[in-house]
Amino acid sequence: MKNIIVGQSGGPTSVINSSIAGVYKKAKELGYDHVYGMVHGIEGFLNEDIIDLDDYLKSEENYELLKRTPSAFLGSCRYKLPKIEEAEDVYEKIFEIMEKNEIDSLLYTGGNDSMDTVKMLSDYAKEHNKKQTFFGVPKTIDNDLPITDHCPGYGSCAKYIATSLKEIIRDNESFNKNRLTVCIVEIMGRHAGWLTAAASLASDGNSSGVDAIYLPECEFDLDEFLGRIKKLAETKSSIVIAVSEGIQTKDGKFVCELGADDRAVDAFGHKQLSGCAATLANIVAKETGLKTRAIEFSTLQRAASHLASLTDINEAEECGMRAVEEVNKGNTGMMVTLNRTSENPYKCETGVYDIHDIANVEKKIPFEWIDEENKSMKKEFLEYARPLIMGELTPIFKDGLPQHLVR
Amino acid sequence: MKNIIVGQSGGPTSVINSSIAGVYKKAKELGYDHVYGMVHGIEGFLNEDIIDLDDYLKSEENYELLKRTPSAFLGSCRYKLPKIEEAEDVYEKIFEIMEKNEIDSLLYTGGNDSMDTVKMLSDYAKEHNKKQTFFGVPKTIDNDLPITDHCPGYGSCAKYIATSLKEIIRDNESFNKNRLTVCIVEIMGRHAGWLTAAASLASDGNSSGVDAIYLPECEFDLDEFLGRIKKLAETKSSIVIAVSEGIQTKDGKFVCELGADDRAVDAFGHKQLSGCAATLANIVAKETGLKTRAIEFSTLQRAASHLASLTDINEAEECGMRAVEEVNKGNTGMMVTLNRTSENPYKCETGVYDIHDIANVEKKIPFEWIDEENKSMKKEFLEYARPLIMGELTPIFKDGLPQHLVR
Repeated sequence: MKNIIVGQSGGPTSVINSSIAGVYKKAKELGYDHVYGMVHGIEGFLNEDIIDLDDYLKSEENYELLKRTPSAFLGSCRYKLPKIEEAEDVYEKIFEIMEKNEIDSLLYTGGNDSMDTVKMLSDYAKEHNKKQTFFGVPKTIDNDLPITDHCPGYGSCAKYIATSLKEIIRDNESFNKNRLTVCIVEIMGRHAGWLTAAASLASDGNSSGVDAIYLPECEFDLDEFLGRIKKLAETKSSIVIAVSEGIQTKDGKFVCELGADDRAVDAFGHKQLSGCAATLANIVAKETGLKTRAIEFSTLQRAASHLASLTDINEAEECGMRAVEEVNKGNTGMMVTLNRTSENPYKCETGVYDIHDIANVEKKIPFEWIDEENKSMKKEFLEYARPLIMGELTPIFKDGLPQHLVR
Repeated sequence: MKNIIVGQSGGPTSVINSSIAGVYKKAKELGYDHVYGMVHGIEGFLNEDIIDLDDYLKSEENYELLKRTPSAFLGSCRYKLPKIEEAEDVYEKIFEIMEKNEIDSLLYTGGNDSMDTVKMLSDYAKEHNKKQTFFGVPKTIDNDLPITDHCPGYGSCAKYIATSLKEIIRDNESFNKNRLTVCIVEIMGRHAGWLTAAASLASDGNSSGVDAIYLPECEFDLDEFLGRIKKLAETKSSIVIAVSEGIQTKDGKFVCELGADDRAVDAFGHKQLSGCAATLANIVAKETGLKTRAIEFSTLQRAASHLASLTDINEAEECGMRAVEEVNKGNTGMMVTLNRTSENPYKCETGVYDIHDIANVEKKIPFEWIDEENKSMKKEFLEYARPLIMGELTPIFKDGLPQHLVR
């Protein structure tokens, strides 16, 4: 018997299931008997909650549906493994379940935290002379894993953001100057601004794009922000500004806490929490008298598989396939990476890298790609990001709605 | 010379431009010399701000782009004509500009308020023996115009809502019961719940759909709402609830004012305004201790032309064409309607109706289509709405983004 298991962990994306598809396809090609899936990641695995992917993916139609299904098909978790020395029993249980089910290799798709799980398990195996192998498959809309050029999940989210912003800008431009609305759009990414920076892609031959981009990499200055809006309002009939959920003031306070801390308190004395865009929209309305609107992309941005990037879907699938190839060769304790081998035309190959250099490290946008004075992205960023949103995989529609594969 | 002009008014939709396309196509077929467009509706027309659509729509490519362009291509306005007896000069000016430019007919796309403009202008023409004709083309995401079976703009918005809810539900289901999130989604439609009701379409063979729907047609009871959530939380690992922005309590207070009125007041004593979903999410979090998330579809729902319904696009185009045919025959003071002539298969034809019976009248959801106890829609609504979201018109992508036509 030759069996393999794959799990999903952390926040969902539009393409995380393509990696599962890739794992299944390559494992079957390489003669694995069973390709198992953990239900709700390592947390579910500890309860032996596993499924056989043969039960879902044998038909070509279901395979295609899985590639178009957002969020974690297997179910995800946010379970952090305890340190080895503190809870040997947890590790013993994992290996016990693997041995019982004759599972040779465990693949884990996720971001920084999930790669830590791969690191701990492969370290434990090495220390205890276990033969099982462990491999990481990158996945995060935040695009903040180091070493890899970019992360599966990012391109589709960026495509959703740029497309939706084009539509929001068109909408906001429909009235004349008398009805100017300042639209503040909040984008995910608390520490790294990769997604917010993707707002710059909305500018193309038929869209003027957003008027400013506020990244968590740069200090947020409320006076500068208000001054910029007042100046834009002198001439423009539409203002659309992209802000990261994670922008902070000089003293390290999140902007979404500005409203809550010293402003809005409800009748019971509780802080009234609202998003960063809503907080800023309220402040702008009060300070300038302009009409404002706050839009938060929320989970839409990471779940909109109907608008996924084909490049992203394909790369996610390739990452899953590569991980299987590697463990099949006996490799362990590494993550699949994406290496850009050519800029123009864009070419990208998979590689592998030691998990110890990846787990728990966060990659931010290089400062030299940011035009801080003009609150915009330089051409280096545009050249980096544009290829990642290319191509579409048309949803399979039934009765007017995109179809998904469910467990 | 035989000239016609068309204008757009009120809130934008994904398909309002298809009606402009239809007007242009039919007018050219019928030998009109110039097909003009008002920039920013009747407000811009009063400043003689008009364009010749030949400058934009002669190529087949641009025509196809226009059908895929959201928001008002011509620019919209929210200008309400004064009463005839109060401001004859405004009416005289409109007819003066029409005569100067040899414009025989004026078409206006919009909702209730815009149909009032058509009514006033055709009434004025009749009273003053003017030969110019005026016709309304229905357009509103709110779907609240009377007489017509439904309104262009509604189907695309409903398709966006149902698709996005399927994706939000998938996302919300990714974690297990320990990480249950109550997701409250706010949908447009302050007085009529047609759009919020479209949340019911998210339930299909691979989605369990939303857990409850709160319409503005029904009185909102906070205790019932909290009780329902607590009950759902006993068994479910994901809760997604759709609420209309316009839901009101027994004493006629909008739910979004609940937070503002007696709860959140900022340091300056200003009411802190937030949306209805955000208000409810805060209340649920405090009263139940559950994790909550508020999502507002905001302008995304009315601008997402990348996900427009082909049925809707085609019907919007046909409405524009029919209006031209009518004024070409000398008819005036009417609006184009959509008449459903067959249920299964769905068939729909355009008709016409006296504008006096339409302007300023609001159509709500029939009570017998609402299952108030279970907070869901009955099959009568589903059968009504499902055909309207059918079909897709693939966007024209360039560099990974849908392209639009701009003025």
